[in-house]
Amino acid sequence: MKEKKSASTKNEASVKDQYAQMILDYLARFTKLTKEEEEIILNNIHLKEVKKGTHLLKEGQFAELSFFVFKGCIRQYYLKDGEERTTNFFLEGDTISVSFPSGNPSPSKFYLQSLEDCVLSIGDETVENEMFEQHPKFETICRIATESKLADTNEEMSNFIINSPEERYLNLLETRPELLNRVPQYQLASYLGMKPESLSRIRKRILKR
Amino acid sequence: MKEKKSASTKNEASVKDQYAQMILDYLARFTKLTKEEEEIILNNIHLKEVKKGTHLLKEGQFAELSFFVFKGCIRQYYLKDGEERTTNFFLEGDTISVSFPSGNPSPSKFYLQSLEDCVLSIGDETVENEMFEQHPKFETICRIATESKLADTNEEMSNFIINSPEERYLNLLETRPELLNRVPQYQLASYLGMKPESLSRIRKRILKR
Repeated sequence: MKEKKSASTKNEASVKDQYAQMILDYLARFTKLTKEEEEIILNNIHLKEVKKGTHLLKEGQFAELSFFVFKGCIRQYYLKDGEERTTNFFLEGDTISVSFPSGNPSPSKFYLQSLEDCVLSIGDETVENEMFEQHPKFETICRIATESKLADTNEEMSNFIINSPEERYLNLLETRPELLNRVPQYQLASYLGMKPESLSRIRKRILKR
Repeated sequence: MKEKKSASTKNEASVKDQYAQMILDYLARFTKLTKEEEEIILNNIHLKEVKKGTHLLKEGQFAELSFFVFKGCIRQYYLKDGEERTTNFFLEGDTISVSFPSGNPSPSKFYLQSLEDCVLSIGDETVENEMFEQHPKFETICRIATESKLADTNEEMSNFIINSPEERYLNLLETRPELLNRVPQYQLASYLGMKPESLSRIRKRILKR
């Protein structure tokens, strides 16, 4: 019994070592942490392995969650007229923040599903609030990271509005080329706001150049 | 001299009274404030009147700013191939948050311009940080408000991806009908991701129903 416990602890620690640098690199974009603060954060991250095809969130569920993707790919999609419409992908180093729009508790309108076997950390509101109470600096980091993510999302939204479908595809080649080999073409087409036939035509046209 | 000062103070106070409820209603979406906290916030809001056509931010400028619109309309646009491409509008009660994407200081890629005479409060990073240091609860409010704004923006982005141009227009009629009478049609068309001719066609088709 004792041996089993120690093996599991050792296993958990080594998984953390493997991913520690990823989360520290992410946080370093927003603030300088002391060694002690880094330790506290690493001790409070609990990794979760999730099999391919798992739903992390479904339409209709009430939840305030945050995810950090250490490994794998998560897809966001909506069901519209019975059809899945993909609106985003999240890869290694990406965060997903699920909050209530306009501050009012409301059921989720979308789904989050793992497209591959994933390793994630999942935070919920209660755990986060406890952490912020004990370490106010972490709330500052969270605020700055959220402001920065909002700026990223605003920029993505603006680019989506002002760019043509072909420009959106070229932009993807530059900013998220890894998606091309990791997600199905019809999901990628949906994410780029076009029909699969259009994506296929654009790809052929670009290859010919 | 003394009389002038007191008149100006009185004038400032009355402007604040006029708009106090707006900012308190906005904050009430995210938290419950004590009377004392309400007072502190109202005392720290400085209104700025801005004439129609004023640029609040230009491409290339470095700035971390936040705006609250008490009166008027602000337009966000990008210059693409020498052409103005409108990507958003902000009306009474809306917030605008300008942060650095991905946490790296970088010049703004877009413009913010008043489409009407406006009354705004403008916050900058330094003032905000001082306020957060003195009153940590305000940082919590700011974090929650930003998370909620991010959820709103994610939802707008998803809707933009999955909706047809006509659905986007119908959605606008429901959620932001006041824009129809306040902004030029070609700017509205750009914001909806279509050409002015398409918007005009869609409007005629809908009127005929």
